[in-house]
Amino acid sequence: MPPIKDLTLMANKLRIASLDSTTAAGSGHPTSCLSCAEIISALFFSVMGPGDEFILSKGHAAPILWAAYAEAGFIDAAELKNLRKIGSVLEGHPTARMPLVKIATGSLGQGLSAGVGVALAQRLRRSGGRTYVLLGDGECAEGSIWEAAASAAHYGLSSLCAIVDANRLGQSGPTMHQHDLEHFTRKFDAFGWEALAVDGHAMEDLLAAFERAAGCHRPCAIIAKTFKGKGVSFLENKDGWHGKPLNAAQLQEARSEIGAADVRLPSRIASVPVGHTAAGFEPDPYRLGEMVSTREAFGRALVKLGHSDSAVVALDADVMNSTMTESFFREFPERSFQNFIAEQNMAGMAVGLSALGYKPFVATFASFLTRAHDVIRMAQYSASNITFAGSHAGISIGADGPSQMGLEDIPMFLSMPEALVLYPSDAVSAERLVDAAARHTGISYLRLTRDKTPVLYDGSDTFPPGGLKVLRADEGDRVLIIAAGITVHEALKAHERAKERGIHTRIIDLYSIKPLDRDALASHAQACHGNVIVVEDHYCGAIGDRVSAAVGKLCSLCVKEIPRSGQREELLALYGIDATAIVAAVEKILQVC
Amino acid sequence: MPPIKDLTLMANKLRIASLDSTTAAGSGHPTSCLSCAEIISALFFSVMGPGDEFILSKGHAAPILWAAYAEAGFIDAAELKNLRKIGSVLEGHPTARMPLVKIATGSLGQGLSAGVGVALAQRLRRSGGRTYVLLGDGECAEGSIWEAAASAAHYGLSSLCAIVDANRLGQSGPTMHQHDLEHFTRKFDAFGWEALAVDGHAMEDLLAAFERAAGCHRPCAIIAKTFKGKGVSFLENKDGWHGKPLNAAQLQEARSEIGAADVRLPSRIASVPVGHTAAGFEPDPYRLGEMVSTREAFGRALVKLGHSDSAVVALDADVMNSTMTESFFREFPERSFQNFIAEQNMAGMAVGLSALGYKPFVATFASFLTRAHDVIRMAQYSASNITFAGSHAGISIGADGPSQMGLEDIPMFLSMPEALVLYPSDAVSAERLVDAAARHTGISYLRLTRDKTPVLYDGSDTFPPGGLKVLRADEGDRVLIIAAGITVHEALKAHERAKERGIHTRIIDLYSIKPLDRDALASHAQACHGNVIVVEDHYCGAIGDRVSAAVGKLCSLCVKEIPRSGQREELLALYGIDATAIVAAVEKILQVC
Repeated sequence: MPPIKDLTLMANKLRIASLDSTTAAGSGHPTSCLSCAEIISALFFSVMGPGDEFILSKGHAAPILWAAYAEAGFIDAAELKNLRKIGSVLEGHPTARMPLVKIATGSLGQGLSAGVGVALAQRLRRSGGRTYVLLGDGECAEGSIWEAAASAAHYGLSSLCAIVDANRLGQSGPTMHQHDLEHFTRKFDAFGWEALAVDGHAMEDLLAAFERAAGCHRPCAIIAKTFKGKGVSFLENKDGWHGKPLNAAQLQEARSEIGAADVRLPSRIASVPVGHTAAGFEPDPYRLGEMVSTREAFGRALVKLGHSDSAVVALDADVMNSTMTESFFREFPERSFQNFIAEQNMAGMAVGLSALGYKPFVATFASFLTRAHDVIRMAQYSASNITFAGSHAGISIGADGPSQMGLEDIPMFLSMPEALVLYPSDAVSAERLVDAAARHTGISYLRLTRDKTPVLYDGSDTFPPGGLKVLRADEGDRVLIIAAGITVHEALKAHERAKERGIHTRIIDLYSIKPLDRDALASHAQACHGNVIVVEDHYCGAIGDRVSAAVGKLCSLCVKEIPRSGQREELLALYGIDATAIVAAVEKILQVC
Repeated sequence: MPPIKDLTLMANKLRIASLDSTTAAGSGHPTSCLSCAEIISALFFSVMGPGDEFILSKGHAAPILWAAYAEAGFIDAAELKNLRKIGSVLEGHPTARMPLVKIATGSLGQGLSAGVGVALAQRLRRSGGRTYVLLGDGECAEGSIWEAAASAAHYGLSSLCAIVDANRLGQSGPTMHQHDLEHFTRKFDAFGWEALAVDGHAMEDLLAAFERAAGCHRPCAIIAKTFKGKGVSFLENKDGWHGKPLNAAQLQEARSEIGAADVRLPSRIASVPVGHTAAGFEPDPYRLGEMVSTREAFGRALVKLGHSDSAVVALDADVMNSTMTESFFREFPERSFQNFIAEQNMAGMAVGLSALGYKPFVATFASFLTRAHDVIRMAQYSASNITFAGSHAGISIGADGPSQMGLEDIPMFLSMPEALVLYPSDAVSAERLVDAAARHTGISYLRLTRDKTPVLYDGSDTFPPGGLKVLRADEGDRVLIIAAGITVHEALKAHERAKERGIHTRIIDLYSIKPLDRDALASHAQACHGNVIVVEDHYCGAIGDRVSAAVGKLCSLCVKEIPRSGQREELLALYGIDATAIVAAVEKILQVC
């Protein structure tokens, strides 16, 4: 252990580096770094060892993280001056572009859920490592923090330590509880944690708190009373300095006030690269025409995947008997995580598990994935490897009403540049797409349907992401109908009815919404004289618009208004996405759409 | 006050009605109704009076809510048999289609935030009413509950009473804390509430608790120990019955077990219709070419709107100095609500305030509105009247990095059938669009830019939703460039550069993404020989796809990969949405796009 005096000098050295780099960048959050300098110094140069993990939940303090990595020998010190510059991996908020960053942050309140996932991964690995999450006091207003807190206590994660940098000041003014630390300790205590209040600038107290935390039998929160801008008189505890770098003169003054910082210390932290596996599994012998819901096929495939790939873990939020992850939960209890009803924490835990090489499958109703939208979008900046499965998608779920319908999920995932968006229409495609998602490195989305649908494909069919299936085609086709999921079955009915009326239609099962096979779509559209109908069980603006961008103008059948409770057939008819509506569109498009 | 015996009989009557209607519907959650029958009976027939508001946060218990409204005389009893049927307003989960429902629920964990908003509205109105929110125990795992709890304590809402129907069982198994009520009381206590644990089936205890709650000087949580399926031996406290109606034989057995239920009681609850105002304001005298960010113009317009319309309220989540709501906060402190960093609660409070006739403007970074996606989508089912303002949209914010960029906001609002999506490019349009949003009944989204941009319009310009502005047009135009927000300014530069190369381009400012002026776009596209370029500071799949659906195939310039920290100009160039990229696209489209 280095002498306390040296750790204190190191805190000042980190302060100066944070001020330097933000002034060089012309932007950033130096005062938010200054408040946590002792905490970072203690963690990086005394407390943490190899196998321990650190998450900077208050991501705007990135400059001090970069400074600590530089002092620890992982970054060339000169690189700190490139903070926030376009060629540098030292971004304004931590992302996985910087190889030591496993958890991207910057949207507040997400680090603790990731920490729960990381600590669970350490436990699964029996690595013995501990996880440290540095939180801001302001972000403790985010409910996701308390979802994570409850979850950490539920899983008995005594290896998890949260540090609240209670610096009293948010962006626009004081935080809710300012320096009344008891609010924090009482909350953490009520959520099943040990909670210690300390002076976050007193190195000796901090080290003692970390030692106590290491001996706790519960997760431990260290509430550190700190001052924003600590160490510089014109910044310290002053409002109005959030996210503002110093100018050259102010920097000089600040440096001289901070004073002695001449120290070098070794760090025992280590960068452990994480590998990803990808194992396949044997297909189920589904029979053509057999009635199986895609969520059932998903559930079965997940179990098989669990057997072939020990990195696969499942997370669910009290709907495992709806999403059909329950078989996996029964078969692999140690790799299954019940999240109760806390979708943000579930997604954040998955980010943490993925960061240590696990391959999480996260399941809930498609509609409730919107609850975790911010966490899901942030997952891409952690380079997470996660499959989200959204069941009960669309109005076809019927009587439960619009709150349960999942009519917003596709654009949420479409807007993630590197995500797969897969939408099986039958059991065979569902199973193969689970395999594809598992092999994909990055975010995948599987859109699942509640109701049983007939099996359309046999075991020899393949479903590569970026492909599509032509289910009906003829030389005389006059209209192209593009469907996905449940509407494929409506389109097949419409095909028969239109044929009876002498109109030949081509039917495409667009099981891969992203990537999209633009060339094939364009060529089929051309073959059908540009008469294209897209039919989707989703609010308008998802598949239709995306296909339109590929093939040009088309007729889009989608959910154009807020739906209501009813039976599946009634709803498909009322909102114009059933076979009858498709036939009407076919006839109309041959006049003018 | 009715005799306790009668209230107990009423509880049984409500039980029977809940079982009857779900059996008639063939779906629904009867056991979740049975656990809260005494609570509902007490509230509707003893505790609540006119001016009090009730929110069923555990929305899947809708059948007992409909039964209570029927007993209170607001619904014909025969209508209960139409539960979940397509012609009925008695949906599977409460929506505003049923006129007495002010807060739609069904996505769990949202009712308490709405309750905070309703209680604040009652306080603003000085109505003296109290607000009751019935929560499930399972949904207390949602962080949004704790955001709301902190917020209620912060605002000292002693008129707010939460009742937790702690029936021990979730959908897929036991809840996290089962019948260990102390977990709930300690949490609420730590969050600044009074918390009482009671037997939720003992009418006398419940009434006493409600009386104590009414005398509290803090918000009060009544933790009611209940049994799911209470009153029917084969349902009570049994796992595996969530969301399952009884068959006819089971129903008969259950009815006979429940026994005596012959009672009629008056209710003092009242249905108070809520009116909405719409006042305009005088425009600012912005000068052409003056550099003003749209967020600044938004902030100024909001203050003027506050003066002209006393129903306007503002909510912000610790970024008021970024979103520029701070002037409104200074000018109208009593109508301004600091939500600290808790976006879900902010959106939920807005739903509550809107339910009582206020007109909330909810502001944060566009990226952080994703945090409230589930609450925002649910707001449409409450028929809420809310404007969301997302500032710092797009990569043009620069050095802060992708977590702060707001690259997913447009599709989130596009997928709401009745929402406006407005995207001003200058101060004048920003101001007029604030006015348009205020006049719109429903959800509006204003996408705001951080950086200053030159004023393009003068005071005589109008910006009706569903319109667009043609900024450059000539008979010889060969390419149509459609831009919005900051890219309008890039497009104008590209226009000049292309002109120098002899190519005439037509420039459209698409300030209204939804509604979209499809006809005008199609006709301009045709005038430009079908050569259309859309350029947007957003991940792909937003404006480009939507416009494509209107005009056919086009070149879409958008953010095609995950962006990084950098300077605005560098980023616009790197991701191909600056003037140079537009000119390149113009030249390319004239060959082939």
